[in-house]
Amino acid sequence: MRKCYIVSEEKGRRRFLKPVSLAEAFELASSSFSLSLRTKVVKLEDALGTILAEDIYSSMDMPPEDRAFYDGFALRSEDVENASSSAPAVLTIKERGPVGRGEAVPIGAGEPLPEGADSVARTEICEVLDKRVLVKAPLRKGENLIKRGGDLRKGEVALERGRSLRPQDIALAMELGLSEVRVYEKPKVAVMHVGKEVLEKREKGFPYPDNFSQLASLMLKSFGFETTHLGIFPENAQQFVEVTLKAMDNYDALVVVGRASIGEEDLVPRVLQDIGRIVFHGVGVSPGKVSGLAVVKEKPVFMVPAHVGSAMASLLLIVIPALTLSLYGSREPYFRLRAKLKGYIEGRHGLAAFRTVAVKREGEGFAAYPVSKELGGSPFLTSLTRANGFVILEPGSKLKEGESVEVRLFSPQELLPCSLPEKSK
Amino acid sequence: MRKCYIVSEEKGRRRFLKPVSLAEAFELASSSFSLSLRTKVVKLEDALGTILAEDIYSSMDMPPEDRAFYDGFALRSEDVENASSSAPAVLTIKERGPVGRGEAVPIGAGEPLPEGADSVARTEICEVLDKRVLVKAPLRKGENLIKRGGDLRKGEVALERGRSLRPQDIALAMELGLSEVRVYEKPKVAVMHVGKEVLEKREKGFPYPDNFSQLASLMLKSFGFETTHLGIFPENAQQFVEVTLKAMDNYDALVVVGRASIGEEDLVPRVLQDIGRIVFHGVGVSPGKVSGLAVVKEKPVFMVPAHVGSAMASLLLIVIPALTLSLYGSREPYFRLRAKLKGYIEGRHGLAAFRTVAVKREGEGFAAYPVSKELGGSPFLTSLTRANGFVILEPGSKLKEGESVEVRLFSPQELLPCSLPEKSK
Repeated sequence: MRKCYIVSEEKGRRRFLKPVSLAEAFELASSSFSLSLRTKVVKLEDALGTILAEDIYSSMDMPPEDRAFYDGFALRSEDVENASSSAPAVLTIKERGPVGRGEAVPIGAGEPLPEGADSVARTEICEVLDKRVLVKAPLRKGENLIKRGGDLRKGEVALERGRSLRPQDIALAMELGLSEVRVYEKPKVAVMHVGKEVLEKREKGFPYPDNFSQLASLMLKSFGFETTHLGIFPENAQQFVEVTLKAMDNYDALVVVGRASIGEEDLVPRVLQDIGRIVFHGVGVSPGKVSGLAVVKEKPVFMVPAHVGSAMASLLLIVIPALTLSLYGSREPYFRLRAKLKGYIEGRHGLAAFRTVAVKREGEGFAAYPVSKELGGSPFLTSLTRANGFVILEPGSKLKEGESVEVRLFSPQELLPCSLPEKSK
Repeated sequence: MRKCYIVSEEKGRRRFLKPVSLAEAFELASSSFSLSLRTKVVKLEDALGTILAEDIYSSMDMPPEDRAFYDGFALRSEDVENASSSAPAVLTIKERGPVGRGEAVPIGAGEPLPEGADSVARTEICEVLDKRVLVKAPLRKGENLIKRGGDLRKGEVALERGRSLRPQDIALAMELGLSEVRVYEKPKVAVMHVGKEVLEKREKGFPYPDNFSQLASLMLKSFGFETTHLGIFPENAQQFVEVTLKAMDNYDALVVVGRASIGEEDLVPRVLQDIGRIVFHGVGVSPGKVSGLAVVKEKPVFMVPAHVGSAMASLLLIVIPALTLSLYGSREPYFRLRAKLKGYIEGRHGLAAFRTVAVKREGEGFAAYPVSKELGGSPFLTSLTRANGFVILEPGSKLKEGESVEVRLFSPQELLPCSLPEKSK
């Protein structure tokens, strides 16, 4: 058992014995626990946004018959085999099929080919004269058709497992005659807050004294997790053990906000080592250094600091990517884009840095403004409300004004133009 | 009253008398009805993703006290006014404040400045010797501090009306001591399907024969509308009038799928003219030409064709933007990005074109593939499931391989890397 959380005293201050790098934290997390998604069956009309847990095979050819590729006339190619602009074929217009020798039926792009026809003459090569049509070029059999099964053949996979179901995906499943599908359940994450100062704040009448754990809970929710806030607890080891062990039975993961650092009052890492295993404690990133991971009953317990910038960094850099990797096998839950940096961003010596930015459209691209130039993007709660994404800096690196930087958006909704009503402003 | 829906006979086919351009359709829509959002009060923990309906003012300065900008020592600037690297000031380290003359207290970035101190010496200019610290440079009063109220002053707007509430916005409202906020209700849209062939399909046992109106309902839902599917109705004018008039009392808008074209069986435009006013019928876009708008009881009734590509075009080009404009004052509900076109896209003579594409990350940018090269992006349902966005072409224009095109994503979620589990593939 690694006693990573044990602290050393140096220059009058307690320090993490062995903080890990962000990359090491990730490696350790991905090898220390393994979660699986549960599945459930839902009605198709309730499936929007769920993730498909099975391959869906097509029960039919799509389209189910030959169709016109262009507007024009459905006809028999043998009737126009010698047609040219100087010697057009002359066919009789019929309102609908079947199409016999010497006949043509008007057809719109995408409409089923009437019986008897084997090709479609585009409007451009046709000239209508009363009840007849002149066709001015020859056609091959099958020309300008969308063939039966051309889009999807019977027995092919129509919708693959893992697809996040959108309106058109559900409409296709409906077209195939299905009424329900098997999808993945949302993973369940519990969040708790430890710290008597939060309890005291509640006694003073604050409705949400635990706003940083509420932030954690809402942040996880916005990334597709089902979250339960277990409440606020005092620094009581026995109570913490009971709540934690129970949570491990009922949820896929636990996030503990507060009392995760290296002070004497920080019981969380000590207790987690007693009832489980500390995977890492202390991460080389600023803010977010006071982050940790333990495994209890084979499930992850994340330690998240109760300061807003640190909590945000810990959640976005460690908790959410680690859970996403274990559950979905994908390392990166964020919408990434490149933007031109407006201002400079500086990291701290020896630590990776988490810096928040406000991305805006500028010209054909994007510009990223550090949310507070004065703070170099330092994450106070008010700054966070002005930001819509973040940048990760390598330890010791600096980003200069005008550089192209990779920004991860807090949510892909962030750049929607309609999020702010302009109407009555 | 404009009788736009009346059709003419030409070349043996019925045609719209006067189709409007996409831009005209939009102008007509925006001047023909005006919807307003209702508001409601929600608890903060339930406010994620809602849109704030009031400005929220700060009840306090943020931060509420002076804080350290960097790690280092809090001290009195007068004690180090003559300090230099050759003649450092020597101060006594105290574990915590208040800070007296000749004293220094260790402080972390973002921590409140202890009483008595007026500035912070960065770690870089300090050298710790047992219980003393050597400070090797002078400091101004207030140096390296984040000032009280520097982020937000009491009485300033903390969160503005119209903001879509994210975790950090809610956490800030909680920090300000709020328990609930006033937000906008989702606009209510009813959807109905008209057409006996759909009823017949249901009789044959199809669970969702009305999949194109289900598509409309789900698409509106994915753009933040609350939708109700009213069901499938036969071509019965009296019943259609009753259902429509009732819907206008209970919903903000109605979307009618099917029987909206110019054939004899297309009762929808005829009946809507009797009970309201046709704003336009027939739009110069392909697919999506058979789209229309009527106003009944001052509310919009959209006519949407019951073919998948046309329905999608009608919803994405007309219904959703027109509702968004009226409700939120913003013309554009889509996440837009520029991508390099892989393949060519061709419009149709005299009509704007709606073409679907699959956008992928390539290098540092994006590439847009027409979903079916053979079809030039023609929207069959299977093609739509392979697409994640669309391109609008001006009438008669062509886009060549390699051109930079503006793509609108079906949803901003489309490019999230974790939407497809790679794990067990």
